[in-house]
Amino acid sequence: MNAPAPQPLEATTILERHDEGGVTTLTLNDPTSRNSLSEAMLTALSEALKAIAADRSVRAVVLAAKGPVFSSGHNLKEMTARRADADRGRAYFTDILDRCSAVMQQIVTLPQPVVAAVQATATAAGCQLVASCDLAVASSAARFCTPGVNFGLFCSTPMVALSRNVTRKHAMEMLLLGELVSADEAFRMGLVNRVVPPGEELGAAQVFARVIASKSTLTVKIGKKAFYEQLEMGLADAYRHASAVMVDNMLARDAEEGIGALLGKRQPRWEDK
Amino acid sequence: MNAPAPQPLEATTILERHDEGGVTTLTLNDPTSRNSLSEAMLTALSEALKAIAADRSVRAVVLAAKGPVFSSGHNLKEMTARRADADRGRAYFTDILDRCSAVMQQIVTLPQPVVAAVQATATAAGCQLVASCDLAVASSAARFCTPGVNFGLFCSTPMVALSRNVTRKHAMEMLLLGELVSADEAFRMGLVNRVVPPGEELGAAQVFARVIASKSTLTVKIGKKAFYEQLEMGLADAYRHASAVMVDNMLARDAEEGIGALLGKRQPRWEDK
Amino acid sequence: MNAPAPQPLEATTILERHDEGGVTTLTLNDPTSRNSLSEAMLTALSEALKAIAADRSVRAVVLAAKGPVFSSGHNLKEMTARRADADRGRAYFTDILDRCSAVMQQIVTLPQPVVAAVQATATAAGCQLVASCDLAVASSAARFCTPGVNFGLFCSTPMVALSRNVTRKHAMEMLLLGELVSADEAFRMGLVNRVVPPGEELGAAQVFARVIASKSTLTVKIGKKAFYEQLEMGLADAYRHASAVMVDNMLARDAEEGIGALLGKRQPRWEDK
Repeated sequence: MNAPAPQPLEATTILERHDEGGVTTLTLNDPTSRNSLSEAMLTALSEALKAIAADRSVRAVVLAAKGPVFSSGHNLKEMTARRADADRGRAYFTDILDRCSAVMQQIVTLPQPVVAAVQATATAAGCQLVASCDLAVASSAARFCTPGVNFGLFCSTPMVALSRNVTRKHAMEMLLLGELVSADEAFRMGLVNRVVPPGEELGAAQVFARVIASKSTLTVKIGKKAFYEQLEMGLADAYRHASAVMVDNMLARDAEEGIGALLGKRQPRWEDK
Repeated sequence: MNAPAPQPLEATTILERHDEGGVTTLTLNDPTSRNSLSEAMLTALSEALKAIAADRSVRAVVLAAKGPVFSSGHNLKEMTARRADADRGRAYFTDILDRCSAVMQQIVTLPQPVVAAVQATATAAGCQLVASCDLAVASSAARFCTPGVNFGLFCSTPMVALSRNVTRKHAMEMLLLGELVSADEAFRMGLVNRVVPPGEELGAAQVFARVIASKSTLTVKIGKKAFYEQLEMGLADAYRHASAVMVDNMLARDAEEGIGALLGKRQPRWEDK
Repeated sequence: MNAPAPQPLEATTILERHDEGGVTTLTLNDPTSRNSLSEAMLTALSEALKAIAADRSVRAVVLAAKGPVFSSGHNLKEMTARRADADRGRAYFTDILDRCSAVMQQIVTLPQPVVAAVQATATAAGCQLVASCDLAVASSAARFCTPGVNFGLFCSTPMVALSRNVTRKHAMEMLLLGELVSADEAFRMGLVNRVVPPGEELGAAQVFARVIASKSTLTVKIGKKAFYEQLEMGLADAYRHASAVMVDNMLARDAEEGIGALLGKRQPRWEDK
């Protein structure tokens, strides 16, 4: 890869955004809080994802992180401080968990696929972030953990994403033991798609993203949406839904162009590229 | 294996049927169209499966293919031709997708188990065929792919079957990247039950089928039906349903014979064999 | 480990219970019936699990077995004898299957996690027992099998648990072929969490149980319950449920203590330990 053109960045943001060739890389950059999903980080993620969802120039997203931790999950200091509230924090905790769950679901419902690039340890809601992405690449030095059981707060929202990525016994092993799982184990369980040497995870995730960015954005958007919808249906309903989706897809301009290009043995030219 | 007795076959059929010892082998034989699921092939498959469902002499099915491709999925030339229709093909596409989804569900609801023997590349709805079978054996030379994303038509109906075979990240990897996956990768993901040296896949699939054919047909039929039914239920409902099924099974003649044979240390004699 | 203090045990029970350090080990001890899930064993398991559910001193459970078989599943001799009943056994079979399904669901709904220690072959409802546990450790000599198809009685209730542990093709392979699967294969499929040398499975399962017993019992109970509940929901409902659970968990004394300990870099002191 040649050196990318320099881009204006807010120097001190806790969530960096870098756009290049249709691929947007979001980088958690709050190492002093271990890239925790603090109020500020949840706001930054929510706003960034909202902007990306509406940005037709973005065709795929990489979610990366800087520092010795990918993300440590909820910011326990911030949360603990609110135990002083009149309601012992109930309203605050409800709000922060709702916001965190909303961010995770924003990833799932984002029109563009999201590829996690996990350079280091991802714990609790940080592990949930990885599980919520469509694809994930991990450094062989990365570790995964749902440690809430160790400090009295079971990783109940992380397990929603985790248990939809790996089998029951694997999910329960992580949730009940609260121990670090290696990248290789995460690969075996199906939590990550690739394990690469340390330092190569961002590049590998961006390769995935560039491959996706080379496709028809409309087609990817149709497919990702239908994927998560049909997963929640019985077989017959899933086929009814997917068939209807595919007929509409077939009638779209990009399918006509793509199939025409395939049959004509030429490169397709997508509508919005 | 000794040489099978010669059987009358329609010489030019695109779907060959061979019956031997309770095992019916259906072979896709339209190599010039890459064994595509053309109108003619969907009709042939639908009729063959309908006949097999009603044929008490068939105890297990192998689904194989001839030529350099297992199946390339939908026939894009045939479909593209219908863009000239007054409705730009909508009615035709709807019909062809409905028919294709119906064939896939015929495999799932067929009383007899179906074992795929994948000798080569299975793409799009061809990959869906493999995913829809109860078991699958692949040649180490076989490849699997859901390439629709490459030509603007996301593999939305194939993903219904695929995502019920493998975990989310694995399914998304195939669907979003549209790249060929090796037989070994397909084995790791759980899409195929065995990988064997090239040329041995048909024999290995038939060994599976003969093992199944040696069981009580009634029992296999009861079990296969209940399997897919209970998968769509919550745990308590699944247990209620499976328990009711098992009581009826216990009262059937073949269970009495089979359990009697087991306790008496003799071979069972199944009712319809 | 030092030698445990001797404990009073009923000498001839078919289900031994041993309590030590918050870990209760239940041991199937009816080798002459191959630890079958006879009426007596189902009663013993049901009563033991009921007692454990109400016993605040029990923080984790190990389910083990003595003899050359882990459990052979239903007691076919006992069941066959009831074919002489006026209704050919229907009422009896219904009752025994209901009771067996209830025991399996007692494991799932038990507040304490259950770790299977599989020293030898687990077949039919014996395999279902392993699948129903939250975690499982197997001896490398252990084998797994759903053999009902071999004797005319499809393993329909075992498949409820099995198919919620492993992927479809893996479950169907076991159910349709009825063959023994090695511990390594079971590990690959995700049916067991660890494979250890013969003789080490009980110790390894107890290590898991002691790790779990060192956590906050309340937290583990909240998490296990929510895990199985959210698995049966769509994504949005699962997040709503898990978020509500986690807010309540956050407000519990053990979360305050645990998070306080974590932030203060000291060991937590759980409420009921």
